[in-house]
Amino acid sequence: MYEVKVFVTLKESIIDPAGTAVKDALHRLDFAEVQTVRVEKMIRMTIASTDEIEARIEAMCKALLVNTVMEDYRYEIEKIS
Amino acid sequence: MYEVKVFVTLKESIIDPAGTAVKDALHRLDFAEVQTVRVEKMIRMTIASTDEIEARIEAMCKALLVNTVMEDYRYEIEKIS
Repeated sequence: MYEVKVFVTLKESIIDPAGTAVKDALHRLDFAEVQTVRVEKMIRMTIASTDEIEARIEAMCKALLVNTVMEDYRYEIEKIS
Repeated sequence: MYEVKVFVTLKESIIDPAGTAVKDALHRLDFAEVQTVRVEKMIRMTIASTDEIEARIEAMCKALLVNTVMEDYRYEIEKIS
């Protein structure tokens, strides 16, 4: 069994409206020291043991989890049993 | 300047509809080895140097970033300049 974390982030050049909204709200709450905010996504999965786990995760990212036009991704794989 | 990552996760006992939808979609795409999926949130911020950075981040989490009834959080602070 593996625990896999896929981090999906908007490419730096893409505007992040959720991040902008959070930053504006923090400023209104007097957290003026906050300069940039990006809201990203982390998909945490448990996956049954399988050959070629990395290839399977790459395939999942490309088929469903990531919009590769707008998003970058990276993942961490940990064997848990 | 600090780079701060706040990880916000639904408490384990709370149903995660986005995670369920992703899991179902992966199964339909023949990724049958996927057993559980949780979709979590990561808020990445740059923050101007300030005293008591940890206390400020705790305050931001409680004021805006985290719904502490349903969500847990943890954060990482890195000094970048």
